[in-house]
Amino acid sequence: MEGEEFRRASQEMTDFIINYLDNIRDRRVLPKVEPEYLRPLLPDAAPDTPDTWQDVMKDIERVIMPGITHWHSPQFHAYFPTANSYPSILADMLSGAIGCIGFSWIASPACTELEVVMMDWLGKLIGLPPVFLASSDGPGGGVIQGTASEATLVAMLAAKVKILDEMGEKGKERKLENKTHTLVAYFSEEAHSSVERACMLASVTPRKVRVDGQHALRGDALREAVQEDKKRGLVPFMVVSTMGTTGVCGFDNLREIGEVAQETGLWHHVDAAYAGASLVCEEFRYLADGVELADSFDFNPHKWLLINFDCSAMWLRDARYLVNAFSVDPLYLKHEYQGQIPDYRHWQIPLGRRFRSLKMWFVMRLFGREGLQAHIREQVSLAHQFEELVKSDRRFKVTHPVTLGLVCFRLNADNEVNEELLKKINAAGVIHMVPAKHQDMFYLRFAVCSRLTEERDVVLAWREVAKQADTVMK
Amino acid sequence: MEGEEFRRASQEMTDFIINYLDNIRDRRVLPKVEPEYLRPLLPDAAPDTPDTWQDVMKDIERVIMPGITHWHSPQFHAYFPTANSYPSILADMLSGAIGCIGFSWIASPACTELEVVMMDWLGKLIGLPPVFLASSDGPGGGVIQGTASEATLVAMLAAKVKILDEMGEKGKERKLENKTHTLVAYFSEEAHSSVERACMLASVTPRKVRVDGQHALRGDALREAVQEDKKRGLVPFMVVSTMGTTGVCGFDNLREIGEVAQETGLWHHVDAAYAGASLVCEEFRYLADGVELADSFDFNPHKWLLINFDCSAMWLRDARYLVNAFSVDPLYLKHEYQGQIPDYRHWQIPLGRRFRSLKMWFVMRLFGREGLQAHIREQVSLAHQFEELVKSDRRFKVTHPVTLGLVCFRLNADNEVNEELLKKINAAGVIHMVPAKHQDMFYLRFAVCSRLTEERDVVLAWREVAKQADTVMK
Repeated sequence: MEGEEFRRASQEMTDFIINYLDNIRDRRVLPKVEPEYLRPLLPDAAPDTPDTWQDVMKDIERVIMPGITHWHSPQFHAYFPTANSYPSILADMLSGAIGCIGFSWIASPACTELEVVMMDWLGKLIGLPPVFLASSDGPGGGVIQGTASEATLVAMLAAKVKILDEMGEKGKERKLENKTHTLVAYFSEEAHSSVERACMLASVTPRKVRVDGQHALRGDALREAVQEDKKRGLVPFMVVSTMGTTGVCGFDNLREIGEVAQETGLWHHVDAAYAGASLVCEEFRYLADGVELADSFDFNPHKWLLINFDCSAMWLRDARYLVNAFSVDPLYLKHEYQGQIPDYRHWQIPLGRRFRSLKMWFVMRLFGREGLQAHIREQVSLAHQFEELVKSDRRFKVTHPVTLGLVCFRLNADNEVNEELLKKINAAGVIHMVPAKHQDMFYLRFAVCSRLTEERDVVLAWREVAKQADTVMK
Repeated sequence: MEGEEFRRASQEMTDFIINYLDNIRDRRVLPKVEPEYLRPLLPDAAPDTPDTWQDVMKDIERVIMPGITHWHSPQFHAYFPTANSYPSILADMLSGAIGCIGFSWIASPACTELEVVMMDWLGKLIGLPPVFLASSDGPGGGVIQGTASEATLVAMLAAKVKILDEMGEKGKERKLENKTHTLVAYFSEEAHSSVERACMLASVTPRKVRVDGQHALRGDALREAVQEDKKRGLVPFMVVSTMGTTGVCGFDNLREIGEVAQETGLWHHVDAAYAGASLVCEEFRYLADGVELADSFDFNPHKWLLINFDCSAMWLRDARYLVNAFSVDPLYLKHEYQGQIPDYRHWQIPLGRRFRSLKMWFVMRLFGREGLQAHIREQVSLAHQFEELVKSDRRFKVTHPVTLGLVCFRLNADNEVNEELLKKINAAGVIHMVPAKHQDMFYLRFAVCSRLTEERDVVLAWREVAKQADTVMK
């Protein structure tokens, strides 16, 4: 396929995409296929000679679409949102064409430098303290990670280097006379599963700390756990707090945790994967009160800020620990400007990296600050509309405070009835939701996800919930 | 930006891309900018209200292009290739529009299932033994990782779980009464820096093993190192071998290493990041002799097989160790079909994942097996053309055997002269190369990288080298 054929194919793909998103309400949000549906639809090996473009285009509807869960359907209310916008798709086309691998500055200076500046733009947009910005001239700065899970792991590995360093054990872990310590990382029982997983991957001990009545990790509970572990001879080294938990969109008390972290020498990482995007609106900044005490902060523009996956934005107060943790420098990767500008390969787990700051640039410019704020406000308002509908029906209860775009609710009945309700809703396939459980209470999560969601979709979703409740309650 | 505006913008971007790639020879392969060139070209914050699409398009040439190292220029001969093809860009557009996050089967069945089948297609295409394929019904299968570095780390973490399991220590690492062992991973001194880095990240002890005269890690040297460490009470658990080292494109002896690994209970991971793509051609399959003894195998279609970054193809003989290493399963991620089909979140470090198998599908179909073979053969042939040109000049020496697309060479003079030569070549900016060093011998690496490279580009590159040599030798 060369230039002219690509031109035609790109036009066809563009038309397909516009048509797909314009008419996405016509598609069943959850597919009806069963496991292994796809293999029989394809030959069992790649063709020897090229298929035609038309063959490939035709197969999108035949092979792929029947198995798609439509995350951008306004009837999709599962998990948390994932972003999708035209400016982001355009930027990714450019990224693909330039196709540079930005592991060092010299490997494509624009790739590194646009990322440095875009992370500053985004940091300012969400009101992050200057200490996290590259433009503040300190050792802080931002970097694009693939996912919040990776950001947590990266922060944990940096924190591990820091504590071993402080204990005068720098580098010893890598030596044969290795003596390891029992390092403990703290997080609330409501933290995302990826935090516990990061502990597994980093070979440190996870410790879940109880939350208060509002699902928040508080300073006192953390202090108590740390002191207890210190008495036992363990080495507390990190706390991961959450802004917007997956279960209920709860908020840990960042200020209290930050204070205890400073007092006890813990690295404080803030996982704001979902809720971080809300900080583009001043009225939600109170949720991040105390963030200036954190050591690292991460949120996913690829969730709720219209920048397509993957784009997880991570800032560090002092990036030097990260670079120390990860630095291995063979000759073929060295260049004469080292040290003057970040070589982002030292800031992440992979070596290679795509030109992802292009989509940040396109989205921030083509929506503007006000456009991004309007998006967040509209989605929060839709969540409150759904909340009101739930509250208007005496059979139901909103189980947790609605702060952003997530409404947690259940029927006033036991868990089995609620499980049955959700099962029926997903089986009908008009809308899609996933559940959560807290202290043995099963509830439904209604997340406003697609940027195409409107009031009529919220009303439709509610009618579907109420209708299925009718059958379950009979 | 809505549908109609996207249609026009996509057309403009498509034109830009075609024009960029058609005329890439007109651009200086290495940019002339210095660190921090970009920041002054942009405002210091995102705009409040949207910029126009025309503003954004104009800035690509003004802001981005001056700082691009053109990896797809036929004059780019640094590092190793990174892939770029029109079918791949088209697939990424579709992936962006569907915008699903494939962490579990139910989150988008097509995303998981196409990946399972495409990894089988690709495995067959490179002649992998059936034990690695999902269609063979064993516990083996393939998965797309972001990079070869991640694949190495993932294999290492799985191997760690396996050895701890075998030692009856399963899960103990996570407990407070933790007693860790000194686990040792082996690899040759020529292995990629990411292997040593994986050891740092996984908290295991790296041990570099000497290579033979052909830069190959051999069974005897490995056995000796393992036995020595066992005597010292250490716990050997893994060996990483390389097919196509970064320095000289050398090949470890997979068969011997596989035999020693089986004999001594090591997990054998094969890192074929660059050279793996050559296996689409039968005449290069001898390079992978013994791969049937490996536990895991990874190569990067995003390097040399025309599938845009990121797409690192990893296969496992038994994926269960991986799933055991990484599995954390909260309620909101559970679904009723668990266990019937892979939930790929357990196979990787991040939780989220893009629909990357689309680009594998588009590329394999639109090039066909023969098209991919032709690409590899053409690039290897260009490398041999360059090799002949070097050999024809008595001032130069080809320092290592040319097997695939890499030619290592130097002037018959001391290191300083060769360093000077490379410096002059890169400063002139007509072509771009990076160096390597082996046993204190500095040499230049000429890699055939861009898929647009033709004989005339190889001739141009050689003329430039010879010309700069004239000035250096004076």
